Amino acid sequence: MPEFSSRTVAIMGLGLISGSLARALKASAWDGEIIAWGPREPSLKLGLELGAIDDYSLSLSDVVARADMIVVGAPPASTGLILREIVDSLSDTKHAPVLTDLASIKGHVIDTMARDYAGFVPGHPIAGSEHSGVKYADEGLFRGREVILTPLETTDLAAVNEVEAMWQLTGAYLSQMAVDQHDALLAASSHMPHMVSYALTRALEKDPSDPMTHGGGALRDMTRIAGSDPLMWTDIALTNREALLLAIDAFEVEVAALRQMVADSDGDLMNDYFSICRRHRREHDHVLNPMTQNDTDSTG
Amino acid sequence: MPEFSSRTVAIMGLGLISGSLARALKASAWDGEIIAWGPREPSLKLGLELGAIDDYSLSLSDVVARADMIVVGAPPASTGLILREIVDSLSDTKHAPVLTDLASIKGHVIDTMARDYAGFVPGHPIAGSEHSGVKYADEGLFRGREVILTPLETTDLAAVNEVEAMWQLTGAYLSQMAVDQHDALLAASSHMPHMVSYALTRALEKDPSDPMTHGGGALRDMTRIAGSDPLMWTDIALTNREALLLAIDAFEVEVAALRQMVADSDGDLMNDYFSICRRHRREHDHVLNPMTQNDTDSTG
Repeated sequence: MPEFSSRTVAIMGLGLISGSLARALKASAWDGEIIAWGPREPSLKLGLELGAIDDYSLSLSDVVARADMIVVGAPPASTGLILREIVDSLSDTKHAPVLTDLASIKGHVIDTMARDYAGFVPGHPIAGSEHSGVKYADEGLFRGREVILTPLETTDLAAVNEVEAMWQLTGAYLSQMAVDQHDALLAASSHMPHMVSYALTRALEKDPSDPMTHGGGALRDMTRIAGSDPLMWTDIALTNREALLLAIDAFEVEVAALRQMVADSDGDLMNDYFSICRRHRREHDHVLNPMTQNDTDSTG
Repeated sequence: MPEFSSRTVAIMGLGLISGSLARALKASAWDGEIIAWGPREPSLKLGLELGAIDDYSLSLSDVVARADMIVVGAPPASTGLILREIVDSLSDTKHAPVLTDLASIKGHVIDTMARDYAGFVPGHPIAGSEHSGVKYADEGLFRGREVILTPLETTDLAAVNEVEAMWQLTGAYLSQMAVDQHDALLAASSHMPHMVSYALTRALEKDPSDPMTHGGGALRDMTRIAGSDPLMWTDIALTNREALLLAIDAFEVEVAALRQMVADSDGDLMNDYFSICRRHRREHDHVLNPMTQNDTDSTG
């Protein structure tokens, strides 16, 4: 396993995910320095007070100049723009830090960045929460979770190794895939399920009998992610539009099929359908519940 | 608050929910006896070994004859049949125990029972788990949860009071509504959300990229209830068909609306939609998460 050799990590945009990375690094054997830049000073100040970071600046180029490893934590639409600004600020210098990001969509980010930079390793940790802000940062957020890297043709292998070494400190495990493959996968595994939760929540919201007032564990879980940040999810839906539409279409086919079974009172078909679902869910339980039941569930 | 005066409670069908009721009564100040009947002796034996019940018999009429309070815990389709058998076994005696059930559909149960019995109080605790069996019975399952009673015109007020007194011992709170109102409400708050989770899980199961292998907290929650017992949910879908179809229709309208916003890249509409969902979810957080974060989450 390659060792994480960066001495100074810069967090560009301090929120729940990037703040959790900062906390996980702080809690690890690594003893480097974490600095941050962001558009809102109160978040940076809070990060400093909470001990997630060691220093911050409101000047992007100052932070970039000091860093060996730069991690951009921002919504997908902003991530590409910040990456572009970072690469531009490095273009007249000899300084060549490793650069990575956390955005859940890679194609749009790379298109927006529109720069080749050998030290850039597109990344995406599969972890989150319906909360937002560094206030909710949690050092255990990535434990047992997957981090997907989508290196480009222009990406240096050494940079990939360094990003992998960083994530290994957090307890995450690494995988690699192509950009398009990542975006289609995430549309199905995360973005479409969020749309499903939103649609379900809205249907309940419109029901005059207020079903959520009588909700149990099923509704708790099925609507939890509908509490997610509206702006972030608007951004995700806009930037992964094509893949998301395909995933929604596939879901709608299943709802229609299931509705037909109910309309037909076809118990045999339903029982088969539900049994396939239960088996599929159980086969993936170790991925979806990587922690034991007694651990704190950081994704709320 | 009326006191729970029954000395012997009979559980007819020992599973997760009825077993949790038995455990909750055992853990309360009440010091009566709990006996059980069921079609499968291993479950009854296990209940005895676990200390959930004090005694059992494979003879329904023997258990009925000894009980002051009879609780039927079975899938909806069987619940009505068992209730009918119980009332028939009482018809030639002076013994008149209070009778209640736990089924999540009331109309079909009452239709199948096809008997008037003044001591019968249809009931439904809004609590559960994707697990099944007395093995998973949990004395805390009902704490902070709602129990809905749907008394009929023929129901004695004294019987309602006694059933309420029993549930109060478990930490649940009580409400009452009409049978039709209950079934429409549950279609929206529980049955349709289960169908949504099944449809989502099936869409993922069919995707050759196996998105669940890369799932995080969102998928964990959105597919948890797709691990539920296929036979039980087939039964529920068959017995609450009309109300369930209406709830699925309302949901499909929302998915189509959201899909259109994505297709149109209409960020303003999306942001409004997501914001309404987040507000609605937050306003109901105290119902959906009645326990503090540090408590054990009995619904898994």
